[in-house]
Amino acid sequence: MPLNPLLPLLGIRLPLIQAPMAGVSSPEMAAAVSNAGALGAIAVGAGDAAAARAMIRAVRARTTGPFAVNLFCHAPAAADPAREAAWIERFRPLFAAHGAEPPARLREIYRSFVVDDAMLAMLLEERPAVVSFHFGLPPAAAIAALKAAGIVLLATATNLAEARTIAAAGIDAVVAQGWEAGGHRGTFDPDAPDEMLGTLSLVRLITAAIDVPVIAAGGIMDGRGIAAALALGASAAQLGTAFIAADESLADAGYRAALATSGGARTTMTRMVSGRPARILPNRFAALNGSCEDVAIPAYPIAYDLGKALHAAARARGEHGYGAHWAGQGAPLVRAKPAADLVRMLAEELALVLAEGATA
Amino acid sequence: MPLNPLLPLLGIRLPLIQAPMAGVSSPEMAAAVSNAGALGAIAVGAGDAAAARAMIRAVRARTTGPFAVNLFCHAPAAADPAREAAWIERFRPLFAAHGAEPPARLREIYRSFVVDDAMLAMLLEERPAVVSFHFGLPPAAAIAALKAAGIVLLATATNLAEARTIAAAGIDAVVAQGWEAGGHRGTFDPDAPDEMLGTLSLVRLITAAIDVPVIAAGGIMDGRGIAAALALGASAAQLGTAFIAADESLADAGYRAALATSGGARTTMTRMVSGRPARILPNRFAALNGSCEDVAIPAYPIAYDLGKALHAAARARGEHGYGAHWAGQGAPLVRAKPAADLVRMLAEELALVLAEGATA
Repeated sequence: MPLNPLLPLLGIRLPLIQAPMAGVSSPEMAAAVSNAGALGAIAVGAGDAAAARAMIRAVRARTTGPFAVNLFCHAPAAADPAREAAWIERFRPLFAAHGAEPPARLREIYRSFVVDDAMLAMLLEERPAVVSFHFGLPPAAAIAALKAAGIVLLATATNLAEARTIAAAGIDAVVAQGWEAGGHRGTFDPDAPDEMLGTLSLVRLITAAIDVPVIAAGGIMDGRGIAAALALGASAAQLGTAFIAADESLADAGYRAALATSGGARTTMTRMVSGRPARILPNRFAALNGSCEDVAIPAYPIAYDLGKALHAAARARGEHGYGAHWAGQGAPLVRAKPAADLVRMLAEELALVLAEGATA
Repeated sequence: MPLNPLLPLLGIRLPLIQAPMAGVSSPEMAAAVSNAGALGAIAVGAGDAAAARAMIRAVRARTTGPFAVNLFCHAPAAADPAREAAWIERFRPLFAAHGAEPPARLREIYRSFVVDDAMLAMLLEERPAVVSFHFGLPPAAAIAALKAAGIVLLATATNLAEARTIAAAGIDAVVAQGWEAGGHRGTFDPDAPDEMLGTLSLVRLITAAIDVPVIAAGGIMDGRGIAAALALGASAAQLGTAFIAADESLADAGYRAALATSGGARTTMTRMVSGRPARILPNRFAALNGSCEDVAIPAYPIAYDLGKALHAAARARGEHGYGAHWAGQGAPLVRAKPAADLVRMLAEELALVLAEGATA
C-alpha cells in the first residue's frame, strides 16, 4: 500500500477511527480506542464549552494518545412558533398515551459551533489533536485559528460538492459518509435534494476527484469493510455502529436491546426524531416515518427537543420504542465487546484480508 | 486470496461480470468481454424465445467463451384498465407537446420468464453456460431443468431475505445489487418496503450470512471498486454502468450524451419510467419524479409501454430527455472504450490495488 499520510498526521497506527456519537460514545470509549492504536472520538456538540472541556479532560485522564472532538456546524435553527406548536399538538396524543404532557414550547437544544465563540476559545486552549465537523463547516476564521493551533481538522461530506468545499476550506481530511451510515447524515443543507450516495460510490467518487485524504464511513463493521474502504482509495475507515454495543458505550438497555433483538435489519432514514435525516433502528419512532406528512417538521435541533421529551415520557412507563436508536445498515454485524478488544479484532481481520489480496 | 470457486464454475479468469442491460448490452459486447477473460452477458427478457435464440447465436458466432443470458422473473403484470387510462391521460399533454398522441392502451410488453415455457425450452436446447434471473426466481421445476442441463444459475438479491431465498432454491451464486446500481432494482416485490441497502453493506451482510458465492453489483466502476468487492468477501463484481459508453453498447447518442454531459451526477431512483424502481440519469423523465403522486403508476412493464412511447415521440422531435437513461451512482467515473480494452484496464487496476494491499 502506498504511504498513507493520514495516519502520521493523526498520530495513529491503525487506519481506523471511532465515530463520534453524541449520547453513545464516551470518554472511556475514546480513550480505549486511542490506547489501542486507532483514533477515539467524543461528540461535544450537545453541551456547552464547559461540558466539552470536562469531556476532553476526561479522555486525557485515560490516554496520552490523540483523539477527535466533534462539533455540530448546522445553520442555527430558525424558530417557527406556528410550526413548532403544530408539531407539539401532533404528538400530544402520544405523550398522553404515556401519561405525560408534551413540552409547552420547543427550544434549540444544541448551539451550533458556527456561532459558539466560547467553544472555539476552549478548543484553542485545550488543543485536542483532532477536531471534526458535522453538518457543515465553521467560519474561515475559526478554521484558521484551529489550524494555527496545530489541530488537525476533519469534516463530513455526503456528496462530491461538499467534499470539494471541505477541501477548498483547507480541512485536512474528508469523512465520506455514505447512505448506509447510522445516525445523522452530515449533509450541509438538509433541504437540498439528497443524492443518497452509497458508501462505495461516494468514497470512490471523492478519492478519484480530490487530493485530500478521505475517511470512509457508512456500513463498515469489520476488517473486510475497512479493507474495502482502503481498496477504494480511502486512507482510513470510520466506524460508529460497530461501537454502539461496546462496554464503554452510553447506549441504554433499550437501545442495546433494539440493536440486538432486531438484528438491526430494516434501518430507515427519518427526519422526524431530530429535524434532520438520520438512520435509525426499527422502533416505534421509526414506524411514525411518513405518517406526519401533513405536519411540517421543525428545524434541527428544535424537533429533537420534542423527540427527546417523548422518549423520556415513554421510557418512564417502560416503553423504549421512542429512543433515538441510531444505527447504520451494517447493524446486524454488530459485536458486543470492550472497545479495545473490538479494535484489536478489527486490526486482525484487516491484516488477514490484506494478506488474502496479496495472493489473488 | 482463498480459492475462488466461482471463477472455475463460470469458466472465467477474471472476477468480473458485465451486467446484462436490455437495450444497452449487445452480442458484440458480451463476446468482447468473454474473449477478454471476464463474463459477458446479454439480456433477452425484452424479446421472445426466437429473438433470444438469435441473440445467443450472435454471441456464439463471436466467442467460444462462456456468457450469461439474463431473464426477467417479475410477477406477470395485473392489468388495471382504470389505472392505465389515468396514466395515459396524465401524459397526454407531454405527448401533445411533441406533436404526438399517447398509446390508446398499454400492453404488458415483456413476458415474464416465470410463465414463458417457450423461452425455457429454447434455453434447454441452446444451453448457454450461464443463465441469470432478475426480479425474482422462476418456478422450481425450471430451475431444476436448467441445472440438469448443466447451466450455471445466478439471481439478483437486494436484501438478505432475497439472498436466502435464492440460496435455498439451489441457485449457484447471488448477485448482490446495492442501492447504487443503475437500472432496475432486482427487488422481488416492488411493493414491499425497500431497505435501500448500499452495496458495501449489502454485500457484507450477505457474504457473512450465506455460503453461496456472492457477486457484488452497484457503483463499481474500476479496479478499486472490484478490489473493494473482493475485500467484502464477494467472489466477483458485476459492472453495468461502466460498459454503457463502450463502443459495443447499444446506447444511443442521446443516452451517451446524457452520461457524458451530466457527469452522471444526481442519478435518482424512479418508478415512473417502467413501473418498477430503477436508477436513472438526471433528464426530463427523472425530473418528473414525485410530480405524479396523485396518479397511481401502472404495474411493470405496463408503465414501460408508455415510457417507451413518450421517449419515441420526444426523440422524433429531437428531444432526448425522455430516454430510459439508466445509470448507477458511479456514473461520473464512466470511460468510453472498446469493451475488451475496458476489461483489460479493469484487470490491470485490480492487480495494482491487490498488490498495494500486500504491503500495507
